[in-house]
Amino acid sequence: MSSSGYTSSGASTPSNGSRPSSPGPGVPYVKLADRIEAKINRGERWFSLEFFPPRTPQGAANLISRFERMVQGGPMFMDITWHPAGDPGNSDKETSSMSIACAALNYVGHETMLHMSCCNSTKDDIRRHLDKAKELGIRNILALRGDPIVGDEWKYVEDGFNYATDMVRFLRAEFGDYFTVCVAGYPHGHPDSPTYEEDLQHLKEKVDAGADFIITQLFFKADRFVKFVEDCRRIGINVPIIPGVMPIQGYHSLRNLVKLSKLEIPDEIREAIEPIRDNDEAIRNYGVHQAVTMIRELFDSGLVNGLHFYTLNREVATIQILKQIGLWTEDIQRPWPWKRTANYNRCEEEVRPIFWASRPKSYVYRTQEWDEFPNGRWESLKRRSSSGENWKEDRGSSESPAFGELNDYYLFYLKPNAKKEELLDMWGHELTCLQDVFDVFTNYITGKDSKNGKKVRKIPWNDDDLAAETGYINDKLARINSRGVLTINSQPNVNAAPSTDPVVGWGTPGGYVFQKAYLEFFTSRENVQALFKVLPKYPNVNYHIIKYEGEDDYTNCDQQQPIAVTWGVFPGKEIIQPTVVDPVSFKFWKDEAFTLWTEYWGQLYAENSKSRELIQHIHDTWYLVNLVDNDFPRENILFTVIKDMFAEADLQRAKGKGQTNGVNGVHHVDDDGVFVNGAGDVPKNTCAEQIQRNAEAEIVQAL
Amino acid sequence: MSSSGYTSSGASTPSNGSRPSSPGPGVPYVKLADRIEAKINRGERWFSLEFFPPRTPQGAANLISRFERMVQGGPMFMDITWHPAGDPGNSDKETSSMSIACAALNYVGHETMLHMSCCNSTKDDIRRHLDKAKELGIRNILALRGDPIVGDEWKYVEDGFNYATDMVRFLRAEFGDYFTVCVAGYPHGHPDSPTYEEDLQHLKEKVDAGADFIITQLFFKADRFVKFVEDCRRIGINVPIIPGVMPIQGYHSLRNLVKLSKLEIPDEIREAIEPIRDNDEAIRNYGVHQAVTMIRELFDSGLVNGLHFYTLNREVATIQILKQIGLWTEDIQRPWPWKRTANYNRCEEEVRPIFWASRPKSYVYRTQEWDEFPNGRWESLKRRSSSGENWKEDRGSSESPAFGELNDYYLFYLKPNAKKEELLDMWGHELTCLQDVFDVFTNYITGKDSKNGKKVRKIPWNDDDLAAETGYINDKLARINSRGVLTINSQPNVNAAPSTDPVVGWGTPGGYVFQKAYLEFFTSRENVQALFKVLPKYPNVNYHIIKYEGEDDYTNCDQQQPIAVTWGVFPGKEIIQPTVVDPVSFKFWKDEAFTLWTEYWGQLYAENSKSRELIQHIHDTWYLVNLVDNDFPRENILFTVIKDMFAEADLQRAKGKGQTNGVNGVHHVDDDGVFVNGAGDVPKNTCAEQIQRNAEAEIVQAL
Repeated sequence: MSSSGYTSSGASTPSNGSRPSSPGPGVPYVKLADRIEAKINRGERWFSLEFFPPRTPQGAANLISRFERMVQGGPMFMDITWHPAGDPGNSDKETSSMSIACAALNYVGHETMLHMSCCNSTKDDIRRHLDKAKELGIRNILALRGDPIVGDEWKYVEDGFNYATDMVRFLRAEFGDYFTVCVAGYPHGHPDSPTYEEDLQHLKEKVDAGADFIITQLFFKADRFVKFVEDCRRIGINVPIIPGVMPIQGYHSLRNLVKLSKLEIPDEIREAIEPIRDNDEAIRNYGVHQAVTMIRELFDSGLVNGLHFYTLNREVATIQILKQIGLWTEDIQRPWPWKRTANYNRCEEEVRPIFWASRPKSYVYRTQEWDEFPNGRWESLKRRSSSGENWKEDRGSSESPAFGELNDYYLFYLKPNAKKEELLDMWGHELTCLQDVFDVFTNYITGKDSKNGKKVRKIPWNDDDLAAETGYINDKLARINSRGVLTINSQPNVNAAPSTDPVVGWGTPGGYVFQKAYLEFFTSRENVQALFKVLPKYPNVNYHIIKYEGEDDYTNCDQQQPIAVTWGVFPGKEIIQPTVVDPVSFKFWKDEAFTLWTEYWGQLYAENSKSRELIQHIHDTWYLVNLVDNDFPRENILFTVIKDMFAEADLQRAKGKGQTNGVNGVHHVDDDGVFVNGAGDVPKNTCAEQIQRNAEAEIVQAL
Repeated sequence: MSSSGYTSSGASTPSNGSRPSSPGPGVPYVKLADRIEAKINRGERWFSLEFFPPRTPQGAANLISRFERMVQGGPMFMDITWHPAGDPGNSDKETSSMSIACAALNYVGHETMLHMSCCNSTKDDIRRHLDKAKELGIRNILALRGDPIVGDEWKYVEDGFNYATDMVRFLRAEFGDYFTVCVAGYPHGHPDSPTYEEDLQHLKEKVDAGADFIITQLFFKADRFVKFVEDCRRIGINVPIIPGVMPIQGYHSLRNLVKLSKLEIPDEIREAIEPIRDNDEAIRNYGVHQAVTMIRELFDSGLVNGLHFYTLNREVATIQILKQIGLWTEDIQRPWPWKRTANYNRCEEEVRPIFWASRPKSYVYRTQEWDEFPNGRWESLKRRSSSGENWKEDRGSSESPAFGELNDYYLFYLKPNAKKEELLDMWGHELTCLQDVFDVFTNYITGKDSKNGKKVRKIPWNDDDLAAETGYINDKLARINSRGVLTINSQPNVNAAPSTDPVVGWGTPGGYVFQKAYLEFFTSRENVQALFKVLPKYPNVNYHIIKYEGEDDYTNCDQQQPIAVTWGVFPGKEIIQPTVVDPVSFKFWKDEAFTLWTEYWGQLYAENSKSRELIQHIHDTWYLVNLVDNDFPRENILFTVIKDMFAEADLQRAKGKGQTNGVNGVHHVDDDGVFVNGAGDVPKNTCAEQIQRNAEAEIVQAL
C-alpha cells in the first residue's frame, strides 16, 4: 500500500533536533568524526573554537569563564593547543593544555579536542599523555609534529615520533577507534616542506594512517583554500577538510603569526591595515569584515560547511563574525534542568541530586570516578552497584554512591573566580552580628546593594546568578532570609507547564514539565526546634535536617528512596526525572555545604577575628534543612511551614524570656537574637536584636 | 536536642504498608519465613490457604479461577499439596502439583508454598523436583515424609529419604537459604508414631535440621493446639507454629479425613452433625460456626496470629469464616496498574508494555526466561542487556527484549476458561459478514446481549471483564467498534487524579496518577489508508500501524524509545511509570494479537466454513493500530482522529464509487462494506453494508 510519505519503521532514522554540541541526555555518545560526517550529509553549517593555554592560574580561571560565555553560541567543539613549554600533559597544573582541555570538557561541559605534538617526545611520553587524556574523557586529538621548544633543534628521535604520521599510526594502533583524530593541513604548504606537492603527500600519509578529518592552517584568501581542497581530492584525500579562520585582531599579533607560519600577507590586507596599525578597534573591525567576506566565498564554493576559528583567546571578533554569518545561535531553552557535561562517559547521565544545582562543577568533580551514571532512576545506580547474584535481596546493604573528597585542585577550579577584596565588598569587611550575615543572603536575593554599595552577585553556595525561576518566590525568600532562614537552594512547584516555558521549561517542545516545591536552608537550633513542633501539621512535606557532625540527623524520608523533584513528560518518551532529593547524597552535600561557610567565607577574615568566629559559630551549631512539598498540584506550602516555625519560635522565646527573667534575671538570647561568643558573655541590644524586633511583625504578616 | 519523637534516620525502618501478600513493586523479595516473623513481631493476623491438585485439566482451569477469587481476600500464601500418584513433579502436566503451584505463583501471581513428600523417593528424584521448583520461582517447601501411594508399602530406601528430617537436612545442604522450609506438626501425635512424646522429638529433629516454621495437622479443639504449642516450647522448639484449620464441609469428607489422619471426632461435634448428615448446607454452616469459635479461642490464647486453612478446594466456608473473624479484606485500591506476580524474581519489575494489559498471564509466560525485569525505565532493560564495555555506544544494535514463543502449554493455561458452546453463544454460531464481528466487539463494550441472548463477557484479547475506567470512554468505543474499528485495548487520559481515585487510582494514598489516552484496534486497509491521510493534522499523536506479516510497519515513534502512558507521582518517591507503549514489544504482541483471531475464534468453526474464512480474512488483511495522545492535560483527541478517519474513508469510497462506476461499472465494495471472498465475487447489499449505511450519519455526529 502507499504509505503517503509516512516513515516505514524499518528505515526510520529520527533526526536529533538538539544542538550539535549537546546531544540529548540518555543519548549514547556519537564520535566527533561521525557528527561532522552527519553535518556534511545534512548540509548543516557549524563552527569550532581554538584556544591556547594561558600562563597563570588567574588566566586559566578567566579563560574558563570565557569558555562559559562562548559555548553559548553553540560551537561543535572547543580546541586546546599543546604548549610544549608549559608542562602540557600535567593534569595537576592548572595552566597545562591537559588541564584546560579537561576543564573545557568536564566543567564547562563541552565537546573538546586537544592538540598533541610529538616532536622530541618518546613513545612513553605520548602514551602517558594519551592515557591521561583518555582517563579524563577527552576523545579528540589533533595530532601534530610540532616545533621544538624555542632554542631547541628539531632532531630525529629513535623509537620516538618524528612526524605527525607516526603519531596518527600510534594512536590507531594503541587506542583503536577511541579517539577521533584530526590532522593539520597547510594550504600554503608546510613551512619545513620543500614543496607544496611534497607536503600534500605527507598529508595523504597522515590521512591514510587513520586521520578522520583535516583542519587547515590559516590562509587569507578563499581561493587558496579551494585550490587546496581540489589538490587534496585529486590525490585521494577524501576526509573532511575544515578551513582554519583567523580573524585579524591586531597588527602585531598578525605579524608574529605570519612570521611563525612563514606566510605572506596579501598586499590588499597589508595596504588596508598599515594605515590603522595603531588603532586596535579599527583593525579588529577590518578583521571581522575580511573574515566574513572570505567565509562567504568559502560557503559559496560549496566545499565548506564547517569553520574552525583561531580565536587567539579573544572573543569579540569571533563572536561578531559568527553573528554576521548567522552561526551564533544562543539557545534560550534549557535542554535540561541542570547543566550537562559533554564527557562521553556521562552521556547516559540523566539524574542528579538537586543539592549541587548551583555547583555543577563540584558535582562533576566529586563524581568523576563513577563507572556508571544514573539514567531513568537515581536509585538504579545503587542497585546496579550492588554486586553478585543476591543483589535483589541486598537492598539494605547496597553500596552508596561514593562522592569524591574535596581537595586543593577542587578548590582551585571551583572556587569563586573573584578577588578577596571583591568578595569582602559583597559579603562584608566585618561581620558584627548574625543580622549582617542574614543581610548578605537577603541582598543576594533582592539584588540590593551591600553596605559597601556592591551588588551581592554570588554567595559561596551559588557560583552564578540566581535562576530565573527563583523570581516566582523571591519576595518570600527575601523575608525568611532576613529572619535567619538562610536559603541556599529552592525551586517553586510547577504543575504541567509547557516545556517551552521561558522560565521553568526545559527539553524539547511539546512536553510538560513538573516540579515539587523545594527549600534548602541553614538555620539555628531554636528554629529547628520550632520546626519539629510544626512539621506534624504537614504530613505531605518531606524533611531532612542535619548538623555538620552528622550525629543529629532527622528525616521522615525512606533512607533508600530518592524523591523526584523535577520531571518532564514528553511526546513519544518515557518519563524523564532529572532532579531528585536523595537522603544518602544529602549527607555528602552536607559536608560540602558546611565547609563552604568556613573555607570560602570565614577564611576571608583574620584568625580570631569576630567575623571569622561568627562564621565558625554558624558552621558548628546551625542545621542544614531541606523540605519537599509533595503536593505539587496545590499551592506551595513550604513558606507556610516556615511562617509557622517563626511563630512557634517566637512563642518559645517569649516563654523562655518570661521564665528565666522571673527566676534568676539572666536574659539569655541565643542565635535568633545575637551571636553568643561564650557562656555569660552576652552583649545586649545588638544590631541583630534591634533589627529583628522591628521586622518580626511585618514578616509574619507578609508571609 | 529533643527530637520530639521524630525518627532519627539512623534507626529509621519505614514500615511497609502494603498487603502481606503483595509487597510493593521495586521492593526486594522478603522470604516468607521473615514475613511471618515480622507479622508476629507486629502482632498482625494473617491466613494461608491450602489446596490439592485436581484430576482433570478442566478441574485445573477451574481451580486457577478459584485462586483468582480467593487471593482477593489477601492470604499470606497459597499452599499446594503433593499428589504422589499424580506425577507431582511434572511441570508439563497441567494437573501436577508442580504445575498448579507454578500457576498459583506466576499466573495468579501470589506467594505459594509447595508440599513435597520424600517417601519412597531417591535423592535424585527429590533434587530434580527441587531444581524444577526453584526454576519456576517457588521458594517455599513444606517437607513431608508422606505416605506410600495406596497399595504400596512404606519401605526404607537406601540413599533415599525415609523421614521428613532427611529431606529438611537435604534442602538446607543443597539449597542453603533459598527455600523457606515448613514442616508438619501433629497436635495429636503422628499416626505412625508410637507415642506423642516420641513424635514431638521427631518434630524437634525436623526443626533442628533447619525448618523455619510448623503448620499443624488438623485438630478440633483449641486447647489441643495450646497444649501442643506448650509441649513444643518445653522441649525447645522455638519456631512459629501455625494452626491448621479444617472447616467441616460435609459429613463424608470429614469421616474420610478423620480416618486417614487417625483422629477421633470429639463427641460434641459428632453429636451436632449426625442429625444433619445429609444436609450439606447445614453441615457447612455448622462447620463455619465451629471453626470461628475455635479460632477465637486460639486468638484468645495469645499463641496464634496466623491461620492455615485446609480449604479442600472449596471456597464458601473458608471465606465465610475469614469474613466473620475479620481477616478477609478485599482491597479495592489497585496496588499497581497491572496485575503483579509474586515470583521473587520479578519483585523489582515495575514496567510493562500496555499491550498485554488484559493478558497478564500471557505476558508472564512469555517473559519467564528473562534474567532481569525493568524497574524505573523500560528502556533500561535493553541497555543493561547489551554486553561488554562498549554498551554505551551500542544502542543501535542493542538486544531487543526476547519474548518467548506461544506453545501448547501456553494455550492450555491461558486460553479462555470456557466451553466451546459458551464461546459460540457469545461470539456467534455463524458469522455471515463483518458486521457480525463488529457486533461482538460492540456488545462486549456495551454489555448488550448477543444474537443468542448471551452477554459477551470476554473477547479473545481480554480474559476478564472490561476495566472500570473504560466506562469513561464506553460510548465512544461502542460507536467506533460498530463501524469496524475493533478496539482491543484503550485507556482514557488522566491528569493528576488522586492515587485513591476508585476508578483510575493505584498505589499508596497521597499520590497523583496520570495517563496518556491510548487506543489499540484492528481495522481494515481502507480505514488505515484514510488514517494516513488525517494523521498529519495531529502531530502530538504517536501511531504504530502494522500488519500480520510485519512488512507493512508504519510509525512516527523512535524505534528505541518507549512512551510512558501510565505514571504516578508519590510522596517521597521517584516517578513511577508502570506502563509503556514500546515499539519493539509491539511487534511481538502483534504476532499474539493476530494469532488470537484464528486460534481462539476462527478455530471454533468448521474448516472451510464461511465463518472461519471471515476470521482468516481479517487476520490476513487487516491492520493492528495503536495511537497515543501525548497531550494528556487536554481533552482526548483520539476519537476525533477516528472520526476524521471515517469521514476521509467515506470521501474516498464515494470518489471510488463514482469513478469506478463511471469507468467500468464494477462496483467494488471492500472491507468496510462486505466480506470479499475473492476478486470479483462480490455480494451486494449484505447486512453489513445496510447496517453501516444506516449508522453512518448518526455515528459521525455522535463522535
